[in-house]
Amino acid sequence: MQKIAVIGSGAVGCYYGGMLAAAGREVHFLMRSDLAVVRENGLKIETGGRLVHIQPAFAHGCAEEIGACDLVIIAIKTTANDALEKLLPPLLGPGTTLITLQNGLGNEEFLAARWGADRVLGALCYICLNRVAPGVIAHYGEGSTSIGEFGRAPGPRARALAEAWASAGVGTSVVENLINERWRKLVWNIPFNGLSVAAGGVAVDEILADAGLRIVARELMGEVLQAAHGLGEEIPESYADFQIARSWEIGAYKPSSLIDWELRRPLEVEAIWGEPWRRGVAAGATMDRLEMLYRLLHRIDLKNKRL
Amino acid sequence: MQKIAVIGSGAVGCYYGGMLAAAGREVHFLMRSDLAVVRENGLKIETGGRLVHIQPAFAHGCAEEIGACDLVIIAIKTTANDALEKLLPPLLGPGTTLITLQNGLGNEEFLAARWGADRVLGALCYICLNRVAPGVIAHYGEGSTSIGEFGRAPGPRARALAEAWASAGVGTSVVENLINERWRKLVWNIPFNGLSVAAGGVAVDEILADAGLRIVARELMGEVLQAAHGLGEEIPESYADFQIARSWEIGAYKPSSLIDWELRRPLEVEAIWGEPWRRGVAAGATMDRLEMLYRLLHRIDLKNKRL
Repeated sequence: MQKIAVIGSGAVGCYYGGMLAAAGREVHFLMRSDLAVVRENGLKIETGGRLVHIQPAFAHGCAEEIGACDLVIIAIKTTANDALEKLLPPLLGPGTTLITLQNGLGNEEFLAARWGADRVLGALCYICLNRVAPGVIAHYGEGSTSIGEFGRAPGPRARALAEAWASAGVGTSVVENLINERWRKLVWNIPFNGLSVAAGGVAVDEILADAGLRIVARELMGEVLQAAHGLGEEIPESYADFQIARSWEIGAYKPSSLIDWELRRPLEVEAIWGEPWRRGVAAGATMDRLEMLYRLLHRIDLKNKRL
Repeated sequence: MQKIAVIGSGAVGCYYGGMLAAAGREVHFLMRSDLAVVRENGLKIETGGRLVHIQPAFAHGCAEEIGACDLVIIAIKTTANDALEKLLPPLLGPGTTLITLQNGLGNEEFLAARWGADRVLGALCYICLNRVAPGVIAHYGEGSTSIGEFGRAPGPRARALAEAWASAGVGTSVVENLINERWRKLVWNIPFNGLSVAAGGVAVDEILADAGLRIVARELMGEVLQAAHGLGEEIPESYADFQIARSWEIGAYKPSSLIDWELRRPLEVEAIWGEPWRRGVAAGATMDRLEMLYRLLHRIDLKNKRL
């Protein structure tokens, strides 16, 4: 991994790319709104009580300026995936690895269909990040990151990348079965991201404190487990109750979808709700609640962006 | 029906009471916000291209001032039903008839439990009304009204009241089975009132134009039919498709719940969604979508009123 590019200069892309840059890697950031600021002031990451300052940071306004890379980290919103058709090709060489840090289902498949499954890795980011100002990212708590390969057991490439992040200070582990991890993450994201918006704007603690919404959250988890099981993924039934119990500790946390909705940014409707619903139904699961949640969010999102 | 009182001086109460007053009946209106205006200017109803002006109108600020009546028309929001415990007793004589024009399920039962089932009638108002200014009601289109008795076939009392309204210009018919009519109305109200709010504020035409919401509306209708059938009410399956087809003609109509939500007034969450869900589940129906809609609306309503 001599040369690395990051597509998507939000909190996630800047953090994961920035930490590698701070550890001495050559990382190029494809940026839009923060381009001028980062070129002038570099990239700042507040993490674990210290400020990591990457200066200079290689910030670029177009992919052609970066050229072929060994690794491309993809951290744009899934709603902007179509843009990858134009942004990715200039970064590709014959051996380029692609890793998506995006939410939900369908992102590895999107990359694999266009640029070959062999290149594709995915990661799950259980981590609290915020872009607090242009070029300034805040990282709260510890969190963890899981890396896996698309449709394969992890090989040396995945392990090397996990080690690169771990030695840069980003707690990262390698998972055997990436899609299983994705479904596990959805057990939480589908109800909590979804209800936080559909119930009119409520944080995690408010969902849990509302007996009715707590029941619906648990029922949605049951539907997601049913889908995962139908697709052959092993996740114990107790995982749902564990996730509900764990959520009480999260407090007034706003799921990313709630923040998107409040800022009138697009919701990741297809990646988080649409694609899991379609796959679950195709596998024979009954997902009436998820279907309704998906269709409500689809409409809420349209309305929210249009206003 | 020598002496009539109306509790609830919104559009519904003023229209149904006002039309009887205009036809020469003695009608007393229990009012709050519009009391002074109606005392001074009377009550005005714009209907069928003409202005019906009731002047003087008997407007009262407390039930004690009215005293015992032959008929009490109840047209407050179901969310204010508790207030009836105080407002109704001064209006009651031994032979007083009560008729509720309220939405949803549980209103006849509320009256019957407190003041005796024999007194209780109910009506379904398929009619477009708006309070356009204090003491001024606009009636759009034609519409229709159905009257029935609580738990009984209609007798002379129901027929006399239907004739009184009909001869006052309010197209009214008598129904054999009031609860069956209530479930039929819910086949429409549950999806369209509910989704209009839960999808972020959309009128009937927007629900129908959104393929996903149209599917959910039809699925919710199926759940309502299942509940009605479980409770022994005969409604043909085709009724749901008929209601969807009919709704295309309604256009950009805002269901009453959407107007309530926009004006930050309480939603009739229990009468329209909670009680039908509870009765359906008790009768063995599977109502997963209605349960989720009910719980979402419950929370949306809390949030909306609190802001």
